[in-house]
Amino acid sequence: MINYPFSDDIYKNNISHKNRGLSFEERINETNQFYLNNNIALIYKRPTPIKVLSFDDKNKIITKAIYEKDSTTDYNGVYKGRYIDFEAKSTINKTSLPISNIKEHQINHLNDVLVNGGIAFFLIEFSTLNKIYLLKAKTLIDYITTNKSKSLSIKFLEKEGYKITSYLGKPVHYLENIEKIFNF
Amino acid sequence: MINYPFSDDIYKNNISHKNRGLSFEERINETNQFYLNNNIALIYKRPTPIKVLSFDDKNKIITKAIYEKDSTTDYNGVYKGRYIDFEAKSTINKTSLPISNIKEHQINHLNDVLVNGGIAFFLIEFSTLNKIYLLKAKTLIDYITTNKSKSLSIKFLEKEGYKITSYLGKPVHYLENIEKIFNF
Repeated sequence: MINYPFSDDIYKNNISHKNRGLSFEERINETNQFYLNNNIALIYKRPTPIKVLSFDDKNKIITKAIYEKDSTTDYNGVYKGRYIDFEAKSTINKTSLPISNIKEHQINHLNDVLVNGGIAFFLIEFSTLNKIYLLKAKTLIDYITTNKSKSLSIKFLEKEGYKITSYLGKPVHYLENIEKIFNF
Repeated sequence: MINYPFSDDIYKNNISHKNRGLSFEERINETNQFYLNNNIALIYKRPTPIKVLSFDDKNKIITKAIYEKDSTTDYNGVYKGRYIDFEAKSTINKTSLPISNIKEHQINHLNDVLVNGGIAFFLIEFSTLNKIYLLKAKTLIDYITTNKSKSLSIKFLEKEGYKITSYLGKPVHYLENIEKIFNF
């Protein structure tokens, strides 16, 4: 096999080094910026809803505000005309993700996305193992409704999820196999 | 023609009465709630991005924050799997909407939506005339780039836009003809 000097693969080994210190969210944002710059997709992190209670008009500073109840997920956007929506979770745990990390409003929202024909999933990072999985929202919803388990094991994710590869510039390249995963 | 007692049409005349006092945003939100409740579409108003500078952990109150530069539009979501994105504008003007109402970042964002195959448009209300138009983002972008005019006349909207009808429960029923308008 020929190693092309600027192929993504060559940089793979440097990724964990390059990304040391970058949070999962920051690496997803960097990936989304890559997608945007290269006209691949437009995916945004949603702002946290905040209710402003008092505003200092002179200094243009909000002086009193509260976090509002979140009703959606972290990210949404468009890829080849299709609506994409996902929630990102990271755990330092080495064997499983506690299901308590996934909020009921996130499940309800992703269910609404599915009902309306959108593409819905979770990105789950096991940070100490340096492993990231994509899990379809439908798979997770089915698991939760038919299972009493309080966690998602990495074995389950290896079987039912899809491993995400890191590349230079797109450290969480979750769109790589999205057509195949969602059959479109 | 038979008037079915509970058809939408019967309520049409009451709409302006019922909605007196509701802002354009509130009527769009009401319409989106109707879409959600009836599994027609999932469209959300985006929260305004705010940067929290200081948080009182004991009382769970944000004590210092600033508005961040907005980079997107008011609304986005999913309809039959397709990505929808739009900006809503309301004017009390009777003849035109000043183009200064439309921000450069909104144009750029909607252009990114178009590049990625999404459905992008503006909803423009002439509140004193009780008229609402849908204008494709592409039409507006073409108009701005080929035209020196500083406003969008209602004549232009009548010709190039699509009039939106109000119904009970869906006072800004912008999805009514969306397939036809965007050819999908």
